[in-house]
Amino acid sequence: MPYIDKQYAFELKHNAMNTTFAEIITIGDEILYGQITDTNSQWISAELDKIGVKTIRKSSVGDDKQQILNILQEASQRADVILMTGGLGPTKDDITKKTLAEFFNAEMVINETALKQIEKFFEEREIPMLETNRQQAAIPSNATYITNREGTAPGMWFEQNGKIFISMPGVPREMKVLMEEQMIPRIQEFFHTPVIFHRMIKVFGKGESQIADMIKDWEDSLPENIKLAYLPNYGHVRLRLTGVGQDEETLKQQVFAEEAKVTPIIQKYIYGYDQDTLEENLGKLLVEHNKTVSTAESCTGGYLAHLFTKVPGSSRYLLGGIVAYSNEIKMNRLGVKEETLKAHGAVSEETIREMAENVRKKFGTDIGVASSGVAGPGGGSKEKPVGTVWIAYADENGTYSRKLMLTPNRQLNITVTANVILDLIRKKVSGIMD
Amino acid sequence: MPYIDKQYAFELKHNAMNTTFAEIITIGDEILYGQITDTNSQWISAELDKIGVKTIRKSSVGDDKQQILNILQEASQRADVILMTGGLGPTKDDITKKTLAEFFNAEMVINETALKQIEKFFEEREIPMLETNRQQAAIPSNATYITNREGTAPGMWFEQNGKIFISMPGVPREMKVLMEEQMIPRIQEFFHTPVIFHRMIKVFGKGESQIADMIKDWEDSLPENIKLAYLPNYGHVRLRLTGVGQDEETLKQQVFAEEAKVTPIIQKYIYGYDQDTLEENLGKLLVEHNKTVSTAESCTGGYLAHLFTKVPGSSRYLLGGIVAYSNEIKMNRLGVKEETLKAHGAVSEETIREMAENVRKKFGTDIGVASSGVAGPGGGSKEKPVGTVWIAYADENGTYSRKLMLTPNRQLNITVTANVILDLIRKKVSGIMD
Repeated sequence: MPYIDKQYAFELKHNAMNTTFAEIITIGDEILYGQITDTNSQWISAELDKIGVKTIRKSSVGDDKQQILNILQEASQRADVILMTGGLGPTKDDITKKTLAEFFNAEMVINETALKQIEKFFEEREIPMLETNRQQAAIPSNATYITNREGTAPGMWFEQNGKIFISMPGVPREMKVLMEEQMIPRIQEFFHTPVIFHRMIKVFGKGESQIADMIKDWEDSLPENIKLAYLPNYGHVRLRLTGVGQDEETLKQQVFAEEAKVTPIIQKYIYGYDQDTLEENLGKLLVEHNKTVSTAESCTGGYLAHLFTKVPGSSRYLLGGIVAYSNEIKMNRLGVKEETLKAHGAVSEETIREMAENVRKKFGTDIGVASSGVAGPGGGSKEKPVGTVWIAYADENGTYSRKLMLTPNRQLNITVTANVILDLIRKKVSGIMD
Repeated sequence: MPYIDKQYAFELKHNAMNTTFAEIITIGDEILYGQITDTNSQWISAELDKIGVKTIRKSSVGDDKQQILNILQEASQRADVILMTGGLGPTKDDITKKTLAEFFNAEMVINETALKQIEKFFEEREIPMLETNRQQAAIPSNATYITNREGTAPGMWFEQNGKIFISMPGVPREMKVLMEEQMIPRIQEFFHTPVIFHRMIKVFGKGESQIADMIKDWEDSLPENIKLAYLPNYGHVRLRLTGVGQDEETLKQQVFAEEAKVTPIIQKYIYGYDQDTLEENLGKLLVEHNKTVSTAESCTGGYLAHLFTKVPGSSRYLLGGIVAYSNEIKMNRLGVKEETLKAHGAVSEETIREMAENVRKKFGTDIGVASSGVAGPGGGSKEKPVGTVWIAYADENGTYSRKLMLTPNRQLNITVTANVILDLIRKKVSGIMD
C-alpha cells in the first residue's frame, strides 16, 4: 500500500498551479513549556488538507508580543494564509489581539457586534459582566469580527496584500466551530481552492489489514484522481476516499461510483459515513425499528450507557441501565441467580446471559445487553486473565453471547467492549449474520 | 492578575544570567498534513522545563532539505540548544542527517560504533541487513554518535559556537530513551543548568479568578525564585508552583513551606497534588472511611459511574448504579413517586432527592448520589432552560440537593455535572462545609 497522503500532497503541488500555502501558529506559554499538548495545529492542518491547502510550517510561540510579531513577520513571507490560535482572553491580556493591531498598525476599537455577543453570553448565564469582559469586544480596526458561538473570545479575519490572517481562541471546542462554520468556507472562497471531495466510509469489527486484503483489487483499480487512506482507531477503521478535480458534481459522482463498487464487499461492517458515529447511527436505527434498549454493565461500568446517552435525543430508545459492579447488585437488583455466580463466577457465559435477559425484563425494553469482564490491571487469573470479557445481547428471539480476549489496558478494554456491544446491537437489529 | 508564566519567563531571562534557551523542531510531512499529532515536542519541552531550560519556539517542517536548512539557520540565531526529531531512517531518505551535514559543511562518514550497533541489532533479530541499513551508520563527520538502544536510527550531538544541536528519531519510544538517558544529562552538564522543582496543587469548585482573589496576598509574597501558574480545565484548576535554585533539597523544602502557607486558605477546594485525579483520590477517601456509593443518573447517563469505574479497584466502594433515563425507569426501578414526577417534573429538587435517597436504599450503600437535568441541546423550556441541572447527595444524616446552571453544550454539561458530584461526595465524606 503506497503512502497515499504524501502522494496526494505531491500531486496537488505539481498539478495545481494555484496551490495555497498555510502556516499555523499556536500561541501560549503552556504549549511552549509542555504543560499541554497542542492538538489544535494537527486538527487545523488536517482540515486544510481536505480543501487542498498545503501547510508548510507549524510554529508555537509564547504569550509574548515580540515573539508573536517575529513569527507573524516571518510567516507572512512564506504563506498565503496564516492561522493563529490562542493568546486571547483576560488571563492572556489579549496579547494576540493587541499584537495584531500593532502588526497591522491598526487601532483597537470596541466592536458593537462583539459587545452584544458578550453581553448576551453573560446575561444568559446570569453572571455579572466585568470591565475586562467588555474589553474582550475590542478588536483591531482592520479586523473582520467572526462570531464565536461557544465562548467570548472573538474570531478575527484580516486581509493584507492578498494574504489572509486568521486569529481564533485556543480552546479546541471554540476553535473547531469557528473553523468549520466560518473560516474554511471563507478560505475556499478567497483562494478559489481546487475542488476536493472527501467521502469517509466507516467500518467496525475488522482490522485495517483485513479490510485492505478484502478490497485490494478495488483499491488497485481506483482512478488516478481518487486516493484511499486507512484511518484506524480503537477497532474502528475509517476508509477515506479523496477526489481531486475541477467540477464538484462530476467529482462527487465519480467518488460515489467508486463507493458503490466497494460497498458490497464490506457491507456488513459499514456502520456509517463521513461525520457519523456508531452510537448516533445505532440510535437512528433503533428509532427506525422502534426498538428500546437497556444495559447491564459490569466491566464497562457505565461507559456503554454514556456512549448511548451522549447522543442528543437518546431518551427515545435508551430507557435506562444498571451498573452492577458488585455481585450483590448483580443478584439483588438484576436478579442473577446466586447459584450461577457461585458455580461460574461473574465473568462467565452463564452470568452474562442472565444479566442481558434480566435487564431486558426488568427495564421492559425490547433489547437487553450486558458486559462482564476482567478490565484490569488487577483481578486476572490463569483461567480468566486480564482482558477476558463476556458480552451478551437478548431480545424476543433469544440470547446471543460471546467471549472477547482483549488487552492488559483497562481503558482500552472498557472502550473496545462498549463499542463491540454497540456494533452487535447494530448487526442484530439490521438482521446481519456474523 | 498577571499572567504568571510570562512573569516567570521574564524573570528567568533577566535575573538568571545563565538561562538556556531551546528550540524544538519536529520534521515530517505526516505532522504538517495533520495525519499524526506531534506529541514529541510537548514531552521534550516538559523535560527541558524540569531542568530549567526555556523553550522559546517549536516548529514543524516537512521532509524537505530547504525547509530544514531554513529553520536550522533561524533557530541557531535564537536558541542555545536546538533539538530535532524525525526525518531519519530509510523511508525518509535520512533527510535530517544529510541536511545537517550540509548545514555544518561536513562530510558523511560511516561511524564504526554506529555500524557495530546496527549490525548487532540485525543479528539479534535475525533479520538480514541491507545496504540501506549500512548507510544508516553514516553520520556527519562533526557529529557525536549517541547510541539509540531502541532502534537503528542514530542519536546525534553537535557543538558549534557554544550552541548544541541534537538530532533524534521521531519514534516517541526511541526519542524518550535517548533524551532521558543521554541528552538531558549532557545538556545539564554542558550548560550548568539550575535545579527546578515543580509542585501542583489541584482544586475544584472555584474558578481561576476566584482562587486568584483568595490567595492574592500569598501570591504577592512569594519569594523571587518561586512562581505560580494557574492551569484551568473543566471546573478544575491546577496551581503549579515552580521553584528555581541551586540545591534540590533546600528548594523542595522552600516550595513545600509555601504550599503549607497557602493550604489553609483554599483547603476545602484541594482534592489532590501532582498526578492525582479527583476520581482516584475520592476512591482512596472512600476506602479510608469505609464508605460505599451508588449512583442514580439521568442527565449524566452513565458518565458518573464511568468516572468511578475507570479507576482500578473501584469495586471496593462503587457497588453499582442505575441510569434512569425514562420516567418509567425512574418510577419502576428507582421508586420515584409518580405524583412527584407529575407535580414537579424529572428535573426538580423533589425528584432528585427521591432519586438519591432511593438508590442508596435499593443498592444498600452508605451514600447515594443523583443527577437530573436538561443536558441539551434540545429539551429546554422557559422555566428549565438547557443547562439546568439538579444534583443530590444522600447518606444516613440526610439529603443535600443543589441546582446548577450550566451551558448549552451537552458534553460539557455531562462532564461538569459528574465532576461536581464527585467533588460533593469528597466534601461530604471529609466533613467539609460549603
